[in-house]
Amino acid sequence: MVQVNENYLKLKAGYLFPEISKRVNAYTQSNLDSDVIKLGIGDVTEPLPKSCIDAMSKALNEMGTNDGFKGYGPEQGYAWLREKISVNDFISRGCQISPEEIFVSDGSKCDSSNILDILGNDNSIAVTDPVYPVYVDSNVMTGRTGEFLENGTYDGLVYLSISENNNFLPEIPKNKVDIIYLCFPNNPTGATITKADLKKWVDYANQNKSLILFDAAYEAFIQNNELPHSIYEIEGAKDCAIEFRSFSKNAGFTGVRCAFTVIPKNLSGLNSKNEKINLWSLWNRRQSTKFNGVSYVVQRGAEAVYSSEGKQEVKDLINFYMENAKIMKNKLQTSGFTVYGGDNAPYIWIKVPDQMNSWDFFDYLLNRAGVVGTPGSGFGLSGEGYFRLSAFNSRSKVLDAMERIITI
Amino acid sequence: MVQVNENYLKLKAGYLFPEISKRVNAYTQSNLDSDVIKLGIGDVTEPLPKSCIDAMSKALNEMGTNDGFKGYGPEQGYAWLREKISVNDFISRGCQISPEEIFVSDGSKCDSSNILDILGNDNSIAVTDPVYPVYVDSNVMTGRTGEFLENGTYDGLVYLSISENNNFLPEIPKNKVDIIYLCFPNNPTGATITKADLKKWVDYANQNKSLILFDAAYEAFIQNNELPHSIYEIEGAKDCAIEFRSFSKNAGFTGVRCAFTVIPKNLSGLNSKNEKINLWSLWNRRQSTKFNGVSYVVQRGAEAVYSSEGKQEVKDLINFYMENAKIMKNKLQTSGFTVYGGDNAPYIWIKVPDQMNSWDFFDYLLNRAGVVGTPGSGFGLSGEGYFRLSAFNSRSKVLDAMERIITI
Repeated sequence: MVQVNENYLKLKAGYLFPEISKRVNAYTQSNLDSDVIKLGIGDVTEPLPKSCIDAMSKALNEMGTNDGFKGYGPEQGYAWLREKISVNDFISRGCQISPEEIFVSDGSKCDSSNILDILGNDNSIAVTDPVYPVYVDSNVMTGRTGEFLENGTYDGLVYLSISENNNFLPEIPKNKVDIIYLCFPNNPTGATITKADLKKWVDYANQNKSLILFDAAYEAFIQNNELPHSIYEIEGAKDCAIEFRSFSKNAGFTGVRCAFTVIPKNLSGLNSKNEKINLWSLWNRRQSTKFNGVSYVVQRGAEAVYSSEGKQEVKDLINFYMENAKIMKNKLQTSGFTVYGGDNAPYIWIKVPDQMNSWDFFDYLLNRAGVVGTPGSGFGLSGEGYFRLSAFNSRSKVLDAMERIITI
Repeated sequence: MVQVNENYLKLKAGYLFPEISKRVNAYTQSNLDSDVIKLGIGDVTEPLPKSCIDAMSKALNEMGTNDGFKGYGPEQGYAWLREKISVNDFISRGCQISPEEIFVSDGSKCDSSNILDILGNDNSIAVTDPVYPVYVDSNVMTGRTGEFLENGTYDGLVYLSISENNNFLPEIPKNKVDIIYLCFPNNPTGATITKADLKKWVDYANQNKSLILFDAAYEAFIQNNELPHSIYEIEGAKDCAIEFRSFSKNAGFTGVRCAFTVIPKNLSGLNSKNEKINLWSLWNRRQSTKFNGVSYVVQRGAEAVYSSEGKQEVKDLINFYMENAKIMKNKLQTSGFTVYGGDNAPYIWIKVPDQMNSWDFFDYLLNRAGVVGTPGSGFGLSGEGYFRLSAFNSRSKVLDAMERIITI
């Protein structure tokens, strides 16, 4: 008799974004002439860069010819793309990351959850609170936590609270933790980390032989030149960190699907005999066996991000969204909200007005202003009392949404 | 201290196809003027159908406009694609599979290994022998087997031998097995299963509350109208089977990346209290959490497979490859080889001449004829003594390869 994976039954109701969709659908169905403005899910809205379209179009035409047709590509991604990534995202910033250390994939959501495949079940796991829910749920699904407790946490996970009190910077755990998820610029709070503070984490990880899973999906939004774009800008990180990167937010590839994961060649974990086991080899084996590479056409689009036209177009996109963020932050602050983030990240992290919780504020904004955001509590206990707005929308909608919010 | 998933260390050396690549690279590097013909990996060679290119091109242009741009799509795939699949692949053949029961993905390799995520670790697992290696390796990686034994099998797996002796049709196990992988038309042997024989499996599964994982990636190659294209053509299958399908082999999407998995809405497994747990919901949750959908452009390409032009183009592609298969089978039989498959599948399964094993024959064909195939033993113990040739290549290369083989 076939048994299911019972760990799934520990998951609390609906993943955050489906729940939001449900409420928005209910609202629009009973308000048929409503014009909802979505600043909820972190999804880009501007068209793809022309250089990406042109490159994909060329690749597509190749696929229609005998000579240009491409079947299965390398599971790890084409060498020409991995080389561009290595040079432009890493070597240019002083990080010695070679093309072989880069694994191209169809998304950071996949990679950041699939990475658990190669790691033992008994590792202790730390996540920030609030946190991108995928890190938590993927651990629950694979049995790395206990039950969901009444206090709103999963038994067995180490939660590192980030809030106003610590300037949204997690404190180094007092006890040893084996795996730590860090995301900077941070989703959902929009917070950043300095090189000096990130160095403390790298040192902690190396001292404890821990692994940092570093999510840098939002690095392109950094405006302050002193902040690190990659964890490998920190000395020692190649010995303790895996980094997740994406084309979703810089070049607007959320509907195109391309990302990559960096696993340094010498990074290792331990087996039960305390022998070093190379993690790069395990991931390479995982990808070869369970993945078949990213669409050729899509990879050509990603490559174009590194052309001189592509770089300018991505810069323009980032500037556009960051100008949105600036407008939002100013308007909200002016009208009395306490607001964080938004300076080096496309997320505005609002302190919810008194006497409301995060979901109350969600319903309030939806019903009174027709604006959709994301309740902070959806990202974890310490997110309660906060609310995330994303800067991903057209200028006119952003202006409209701010006008609606401040005039409720 | 971070621990690795030690199950990976049980895997025997290199996944089959990387090993083949290594040998071929070694050969071409020491035979620089060699002209190797690859009939090894099951990768298509003909250009993409024009209707797919046109649809993708149109979608790509949309992505460059404000109105047409698409960000994140549904993790399950766009409704318009799922509806086309439902009508054309299932309803048209009398299978009541609704769009919601179809999950669009980037590949069957991913799906057929990721499916284990939602199933318990203690299920007993049966695979045919020989078998598509991904089924076995994904079970090893997730700790569902014991060690690799000296006799060339993994401890704990149930192997269902398929050979000349049983006409490449696995026998129903005498004991209860919880999960059974079946692939028809079969990779690697090219064998098929009749409705009557498949019914026996469905009945067995329903009697034992087992789950059949049915891989129908090659259904488009079926020439005999009596053979089932889908397991859901068999009464009772919706209660016991998940089906994997792909656009890789029919429309040549190996480098484009699109596939789908069917999970009937009422299909269930058990929890440890013997309560029924719905598998559709678990997979829906998995995909929502760990996957972000398939490229919009690619899904438009897949949709075009169901247009009248697309259907004709796919038919032409299938006819082309099946004519290759016919030529190969005839030539090889005429020159004295014993040959199976190739009638309803793009694979020819050759009995290796006496006094050679499968890898000997691989090296012999590579070194003497410059032809690359796949050693049967790479697919499992009972594959020893056999050799797979794929019909995926241009007509001229197929003719050339046959000429070379029969004149060694």
